[in-house]
Amino acid sequence: MKVSELGEFGLIDLLAKMAYATQDKKIGAWQQLILGIGDDTAAWSGDDSIQLATVDSLIQGVHFTLDITSWEELGWRALAANLSDIAAMGGLPRYALVSLALPGDTEVEDVTALYRGMLELAQQFEVAIVGGDTSSAPLLVINITILGSSISRDKGILTRSAAKPGEKVAVTGYLGTAAAGLEMLSKHLQFDSEATASLKRAFLQPYPRIAEGQILVEQGVRAAIDISDGLISDLRHICKASQVSARIEVDRLPIAPAVKANFSDRALELALSGGEDYELLFTTSEDIIGKVRAAASCPITVVGEITADKAGEITLIDEKGNPANLPKAGWEHFTTR
Amino acid sequence: MKVSELGEFGLIDLLAKMAYATQDKKIGAWQQLILGIGDDTAAWSGDDSIQLATVDSLIQGVHFTLDITSWEELGWRALAANLSDIAAMGGLPRYALVSLALPGDTEVEDVTALYRGMLELAQQFEVAIVGGDTSSAPLLVINITILGSSISRDKGILTRSAAKPGEKVAVTGYLGTAAAGLEMLSKHLQFDSEATASLKRAFLQPYPRIAEGQILVEQGVRAAIDISDGLISDLRHICKASQVSARIEVDRLPIAPAVKANFSDRALELALSGGEDYELLFTTSEDIIGKVRAAASCPITVVGEITADKAGEITLIDEKGNPANLPKAGWEHFTTR
Repeated sequence: MKVSELGEFGLIDLLAKMAYATQDKKIGAWQQLILGIGDDTAAWSGDDSIQLATVDSLIQGVHFTLDITSWEELGWRALAANLSDIAAMGGLPRYALVSLALPGDTEVEDVTALYRGMLELAQQFEVAIVGGDTSSAPLLVINITILGSSISRDKGILTRSAAKPGEKVAVTGYLGTAAAGLEMLSKHLQFDSEATASLKRAFLQPYPRIAEGQILVEQGVRAAIDISDGLISDLRHICKASQVSARIEVDRLPIAPAVKANFSDRALELALSGGEDYELLFTTSEDIIGKVRAAASCPITVVGEITADKAGEITLIDEKGNPANLPKAGWEHFTTR
Repeated sequence: MKVSELGEFGLIDLLAKMAYATQDKKIGAWQQLILGIGDDTAAWSGDDSIQLATVDSLIQGVHFTLDITSWEELGWRALAANLSDIAAMGGLPRYALVSLALPGDTEVEDVTALYRGMLELAQQFEVAIVGGDTSSAPLLVINITILGSSISRDKGILTRSAAKPGEKVAVTGYLGTAAAGLEMLSKHLQFDSEATASLKRAFLQPYPRIAEGQILVEQGVRAAIDISDGLISDLRHICKASQVSARIEVDRLPIAPAVKANFSDRALELALSGGEDYELLFTTSEDIIGKVRAAASCPITVVGEITADKAGEITLIDEKGNPANLPKAGWEHFTTR
C-alpha cells in the first residue's frame, strides 16, 4: 500500500501503534511519560512541572511557497505554527531548536531574514533559540522543535482526550481568516486596504494563542487543540481521542468582517475547513467559558457541543436547526482531493 | 552572497551571533542556558540535572541514498547520528521526536521498516519515541530531535570548549571505517566476507558511544566531540571553541585491519577525513586516559596533543616526526570540493 492511500492520520496511527507495541514500558522514560504520539505535543513528568516537546517540518512547495511569503514572514509563520502546539497544551514555551535545509545558492541575506522573523516572534514569547542544524538540500525545509513546560504541576495541561458529553465547544478569535488571506494572496484578489491588511496578517503573521492557552488551564478547561488543519478536522481529532462526537451550529461560527464581506458565499466553508488560523478550540462547561471570556483579551465563541456518541462524528446544524452537509474536510497530508 | 560561499560553519556562526545579539538575556530561558548554538547539543539547567537537546536532519540525496541503504538501516543510522550528539556530551538520551517528510507514493512497508530500524536502536538505549510529525514532500527528509540529560548535576557534561594546552587527544574505537564502508558499497568493491561485513556494519549500523561518553564524564574528562564530519574537521571544532591548536601523529591513528588491508594507500586519508564513524574524540590528561581505558570496553587511542596556539590549527606529524600535509578537509555542507 502507498502512503497516499493510508493518508497522514492513518500513517500517524500506524507508527504510534508500532512505537507503543515495540517499546519497553518499564524503562524510566516511559514510566514518566504522560502523552506520547497523538496529541499536540509529547508530555512527561519533570521535577517541578510537566515537560512538553513538539516538532514541525515545513517543506517548500508543500507548506509554503516563496512567491507569496517573504523570508522574514516565513520565519515568523514557521515558529508561530510550533508555538501554537504549546498553546494547545496550555503550556509555556522555553527553548527552540531550528533545523534549516536549503540549496547552496540561497542568498545569505534571505536566510538571515528568515531567522530575523523567527527571532522577532521568539522575543515576544521569551523563547530562546539555542540550537539546530543546517544542511544543503534541493529545496528549503524548516524544522522547528520547541521545548516547554506546563505553567505549574498542579494545573496540569490541556489534552485532546479530555472532552466530555454535554460540554460546549468554543473557539478563540475568528475562523477562516488565514485561509481567506492565502486565497487572496495566491489568486491576487483585490480588496480594500483594511481588509487586505487584516487577511494578509492572518495568513502571514499568525499570533500563537499562548496567553489564551494558559488562561484555559488556569480556569479549569481540560480539553483543547489548536486549529491548524481546520475546525472540522481538528474537532474530529478531539472527538476521536475523547471517544465522543460533536455538533456544530454553523450560524454561530465567528467569521471576521473582512472574510464575510469579501468571500460571502464561501465564508462558511473557509471557517469550517480553512487551516492555519492557529486559534484554540476547547470544550468545557458554560460556567468555565464565562470565566475564560472574562480573562481573555480575544473573542471567545461557543460554536457547538459535545455529544455522547463514541464514533467521533461531527454534525453540522444550520440556522434553522436542520442538519447541514459537511464541506470537504480540512488539510491532510498525502491525500488527493 | 550565496550560502555556498559562506559554507556550513560560516552560516552557523552567523546565525549563532544573530541569535545571541537579538535575544534578551534576562528572560528565564537564557538565565538557565548553559550551551546555546555551537556545541553538539544545547544544554540548560534543569531541577536535578542538566537538560540536553539536539536535532539533525537527513535529506535524501545529500545525507543518504536508498540504493545502498535499506529503509531499516536508514532508520537505525538516522537515530544513531543523533544519539551520538548526546554521547558527545556524556549524557543520557531519554526521548525522541521523529519528523518524516516523504512522497505520497512511498510504500507504507518502507516507512514501517524505517521506523523499525529506529525503534530497534531506541530500545537498546532505553529511549522512548514519543512524538513527531509526518508530511508529504518531493523527497525523503528525516528529522530527529533527542532530549536527554546529564548523568547527574555534579558530574556535568562534556563540551567542545574545555580543551587545554598539554592535554592528550584521544579517540574511541577505529577511524575511517564508516567512510571505507560507504566507498565499498557505492563503488561495489569486492573484499573477503569478514571485511565486507565489518565495513558494511560500520557505515550502515554505527553504534553510538553513549556508554563511553558517560565513562568520560565519570572519569573527569571535560572536552569531547563526536566524529561525524571526520577527525580533522571535528578536532578543529574543539580547537576553535577552546582557542587552542592540536598536533596529530598520523602513525598513531587507530585504523581497522579491514581498512588497512583493503584501502592501503588511502587508509590514512579515510581515518583523517572520513565522517560518520560516530566515535568520540576527547582531550584530557594521560592519567585520566588510563582510567578511561580501564573502564571502557573499546580501544582508547592517544593520537596527538593540544597545543597553546589560539588559532585553532591542526598540524599533522608523520612517522619521522616531520610535518605532513593535510588531506582535504572533512564534510561541510554547501561547499563544493
